[in-house]
Amino acid sequence: MAHLAILGAGVMGSALAVPACANGHRVTLFGSPLDDAAVAAIETTRHHPKLDLTLPHGTGAVRSDGFDPALLAGADAVIVAVSSPGIGWASERLAACERLGTVGLVTKGLVPPERGAPLTYADSVPAMLAAAGVAHAGFVGIGGPCIAREIALGVPTSTVYASSNRDAAETLGRLLDTDAYRVHLDDDVIGLEACAALKNFLAIGVSATITAWSVEAKGVVAAAKNPTAALFTQAIGELELLVRWIGGTSGTAFGLAGAGDLHVTVGGGRNSRLGMLLGQGMTVRAALDGPLAGETVEGRDTGRVLGPALRAAQADGLLPALPLTDALLRAIEHEVPLELDFGGLGHFCR
Amino acid sequence: MAHLAILGAGVMGSALAVPACANGHRVTLFGSPLDDAAVAAIETTRHHPKLDLTLPHGTGAVRSDGFDPALLAGADAVIVAVSSPGIGWASERLAACERLGTVGLVTKGLVPPERGAPLTYADSVPAMLAAAGVAHAGFVGIGGPCIAREIALGVPTSTVYASSNRDAAETLGRLLDTDAYRVHLDDDVIGLEACAALKNFLAIGVSATITAWSVEAKGVVAAAKNPTAALFTQAIGELELLVRWIGGTSGTAFGLAGAGDLHVTVGGGRNSRLGMLLGQGMTVRAALDGPLAGETVEGRDTGRVLGPALRAAQADGLLPALPLTDALLRAIEHEVPLELDFGGLGHFCR
Repeated sequence: MAHLAILGAGVMGSALAVPACANGHRVTLFGSPLDDAAVAAIETTRHHPKLDLTLPHGTGAVRSDGFDPALLAGADAVIVAVSSPGIGWASERLAACERLGTVGLVTKGLVPPERGAPLTYADSVPAMLAAAGVAHAGFVGIGGPCIAREIALGVPTSTVYASSNRDAAETLGRLLDTDAYRVHLDDDVIGLEACAALKNFLAIGVSATITAWSVEAKGVVAAAKNPTAALFTQAIGELELLVRWIGGTSGTAFGLAGAGDLHVTVGGGRNSRLGMLLGQGMTVRAALDGPLAGETVEGRDTGRVLGPALRAAQADGLLPALPLTDALLRAIEHEVPLELDFGGLGHFCR
Repeated sequence: MAHLAILGAGVMGSALAVPACANGHRVTLFGSPLDDAAVAAIETTRHHPKLDLTLPHGTGAVRSDGFDPALLAGADAVIVAVSSPGIGWASERLAACERLGTVGLVTKGLVPPERGAPLTYADSVPAMLAAAGVAHAGFVGIGGPCIAREIALGVPTSTVYASSNRDAAETLGRLLDTDAYRVHLDDDVIGLEACAALKNFLAIGVSATITAWSVEAKGVVAAAKNPTAALFTQAIGELELLVRWIGGTSGTAFGLAGAGDLHVTVGGGRNSRLGMLLGQGMTVRAALDGPLAGETVEGRDTGRVLGPALRAAQADGLLPALPLTDALLRAIEHEVPLELDFGGLGHFCR
């Protein structure tokens, strides 16, 4: 039996307790300051209020004010599963330890570069650990089409554990791989981290098509499918160019962490909700001040990191115009309505 | 003003009259024997009963018993838009002409090979025309995520016109390209034709996941999304291998004719309906004898052509095991329930 530490007691961190405990391991959820209510509920009944499920035997939870570096350092592995604004909090917790087991990362985001392409957490988190003098058994990025509640319910799910250190990916993967939660191993950790962040951003644009056009048949009004499929394909193509620019491989963009995660992100979650509001003509500001007030929309934050670096690369001829990405950046950075200039997507007869 | 002939007055053939007429061209729909009712309706009111829309001025229709090779031969271009069982009827009509303008093909299917990979219509239709001594201005495959009714309604749609003869693709594309119906040009006509056929087949498997697993939240039962996204990604990956085996390129599989058309095919149409019945545990036979009685399910026909050639290629080591394709073939050829062996999809920790 191993001991798995999870930083963050939100829906994703807590859901990962299900496959880990199914394999007979013990799990400790370290709540962030945002998770105090969830931790209190787990401590008394093991019921997670946001997942609306009872977590398995073997799952414990620690409130943020009870954090103990010795407990984290003693775990065989730690998975960071906070939402992207929590990455600083999680990094401080990791840096407080002298040594760690395998470090897995579910949290998604891009880091502004001094120059060149944005950095991924596959660069910045190991660099932070090295700077803090924290020894660890390897860094593993975790991606793929994984809605947390479906993992917790035991629905068949394919996930990717990627690392430049294959042993580390396999060690962490074996802790969690079950018949339902299927772990694929991969080497391209930079590509996976780039996909994990960028798919949130691109999903905003694809989701906008869901509300922008509708059709009626037999009195039923439904979203038009042709434009959504076209933009989904455009998003995969632009993702592939962006992932290669950042340092990953094409196959990652077309695989579970890229196309697969984009598929599951379009139509559900906050990035998709923002996109559907943009598709109705709302600006990003109006959406964030209105229906999405108080919510974190990770894809928008990714766009704000991506924008300056992307334009520099385009000016240097390193990247072509990317119609969907460029249109999304205009909407995010300039607070103008999203213009899905369908004519600009790809090469046409005229 | 050009004259566009369309073989087949079903929903797709008739929908293509909309962009052609919007560009000021004249369209003649040549009905197959299955289209007599539609042609009669178009002749009197221009209302298409299955599209449930009035076709534009400039659209005429000819009943199957009034077919005149001279009228077809006089058109600047002809598009074959019958469903796959009609390809023989359409081929006879083309072969009755001495010469034709540009020949476009919407009809999807694979042709059994003497040996090796299945042939596409990009091989068989030009070969048939050559054997019949019919001169023509070039063969163009037409693919991409195009629901006919959305084309007819003017919803933004991206389509691909592919030909080894770029002039032919551009000539035909210019006749139909509008602000709403966007024509992309491509060279990989074999890859496009392979995608057009195979996406129907693979969509059966992806669609099965929609009914195979469900989740409940706040009293609402919905399809689980993780397995559908995983199988969608698996389908794209297997499509890429199959397309390259048949003679196309990777980019076509990941583009509008591959991933894009798969996206729009999953969740709508007869292939998807068959898949959703299989996901509920029904056999192919039970579905075709029951809820789908009398319907043509093109993806099943594609599977029956694909199977023998695929197994020979796998036996020769030319193709690896393809978990989704192999499972679909077992269900189609042996009348056993579809087993989506999730564990067999890709490489796992164990």
